[in-house]
Amino acid sequence: MMGGSPVPPRSRRHTIAGNAAEPGRTVLSRAFAVLDSFLDAPVDKTHGEITRASGLAPATVHRLLAELTGWGALERTARGRYRVGLRLWQLGSQAPGGRGLRDLALPFLQDLLQVSNEVVHLVVRDQDRALYLEKLEAHPDVVVTSRVGLRLPMHASGPGKVLLAHAPRGVVEPVLAAGLERRASGTITDPARLREALAEIRRQGFALSRDEMTEGASSVAAPVRGPAGRVVAAISVVVPSRTPNLLPLVPAVRMAAMGVSRALQP
Amino acid sequence: MMGGSPVPPRSRRHTIAGNAAEPGRTVLSRAFAVLDSFLDAPVDKTHGEITRASGLAPATVHRLLAELTGWGALERTARGRYRVGLRLWQLGSQAPGGRGLRDLALPFLQDLLQVSNEVVHLVVRDQDRALYLEKLEAHPDVVVTSRVGLRLPMHASGPGKVLLAHAPRGVVEPVLAAGLERRASGTITDPARLREALAEIRRQGFALSRDEMTEGASSVAAPVRGPAGRVVAAISVVVPSRTPNLLPLVPAVRMAAMGVSRALQP
Repeated sequence: MMGGSPVPPRSRRHTIAGNAAEPGRTVLSRAFAVLDSFLDAPVDKTHGEITRASGLAPATVHRLLAELTGWGALERTARGRYRVGLRLWQLGSQAPGGRGLRDLALPFLQDLLQVSNEVVHLVVRDQDRALYLEKLEAHPDVVVTSRVGLRLPMHASGPGKVLLAHAPRGVVEPVLAAGLERRASGTITDPARLREALAEIRRQGFALSRDEMTEGASSVAAPVRGPAGRVVAAISVVVPSRTPNLLPLVPAVRMAAMGVSRALQP
Repeated sequence: MMGGSPVPPRSRRHTIAGNAAEPGRTVLSRAFAVLDSFLDAPVDKTHGEITRASGLAPATVHRLLAELTGWGALERTARGRYRVGLRLWQLGSQAPGGRGLRDLALPFLQDLLQVSNEVVHLVVRDQDRALYLEKLEAHPDVVVTSRVGLRLPMHASGPGKVLLAHAPRGVVEPVLAAGLERRASGTITDPARLREALAEIRRQGFALSRDEMTEGASSVAAPVRGPAGRVVAAISVVVPSRTPNLLPLVPAVRMAAMGVSRALQP
């Protein structure tokens, strides 16, 4: 569903010829650069911050912000900052990739939330990152950094490792070669050890993580498979790391993932 | 939250001066016109359908589609049609308006789903329409046309009437003057009767509907109030119209709406 038509990498985006003032960038590509500045750091931003993040001239950003705000892609806050607007939310909610999978998965995620009573995630691969499609929380004992729409590194979480374990070589090798950033005390930073972990995840059909993304948070994750058996998403439960044994959670997480996989069959 | 910074009406959007080929339209405004064609009819579209909906020249649409697809705003399907892409979903999920309210409301919506076991909606006003922010379903006996991201007329549903009952005069009068389209056998099409219904909703603190939007579907809706007491959203439960008495559902719907209102307090 998702892995099949991946979003183009950011580096390929701004290649269409533009005008002389900012060579190599069309008006649209400049507007995309403004919007990109909101992608992975979703806070209110000033004109100056957007200018720095986009690499555009201040006057260009000024003009683009006026048009993007006029249409509703962005909103101006009371403090004169900019944030993503309701029009983009509405348009984005029509994306069959994000929405369709999420809608099919929701009942299973809710069941999983009910038996685990913590945090439940639905995650897909977006190029070399794990994109969080849904997050449900009950009364969690654990605080995690995930948020719907956020993209996080794949090597440092249960669902990320599930997605990486089933990603094509062309995705896995660059991730391993780029260096595995430490996010918490349990992050696997050694490529050889990560390779072994991914092989074991493929063999076992699930992934465990302990203090990999966030200190104090552990997770159990399992793959969701699309019609051709290809892994299209991962489902996970996050629990406090003081949970002595994660294995009792495995059957419920796998059941939820298998339920969604079945719902994806045509 | 939402009503305070409404999205500009569609008619105000394309006013910035552009080039000679399509006077009065900038490149960006033309890209917005392409994206607008996906707003309220979220299906895969052909190049020809987008051209007709946007009123642009076919060659212009061709160029815009290439750029929008390159960035990931749109995706090309296997059948050569276009649909909203994952990049827009991700960006839209950062909108604090849609997302913040939905995240705060979700636990209360889930509780309401559990006690009602049907369909639960979270709806906000977007100008003169009801915009569906969230829809949760259990094992519903009733089929409704709502979908997350969809905008429907306000006069023909429980949550729509709640939002209209608390909308400013500048919104209500044009809605009444524009004519109240019949959507099902119970739709209120007489402006005088709708005025009375809205006054009663303000007095009672909830709205009932029977066969107003969809034949066979009835609903109970209550207002969610923001920090200043202003109505910012409506929560509703939809049940089959064969349900003889809707009143027993009122307390649960009002409790959910009050819970969200409380969560919105600073």
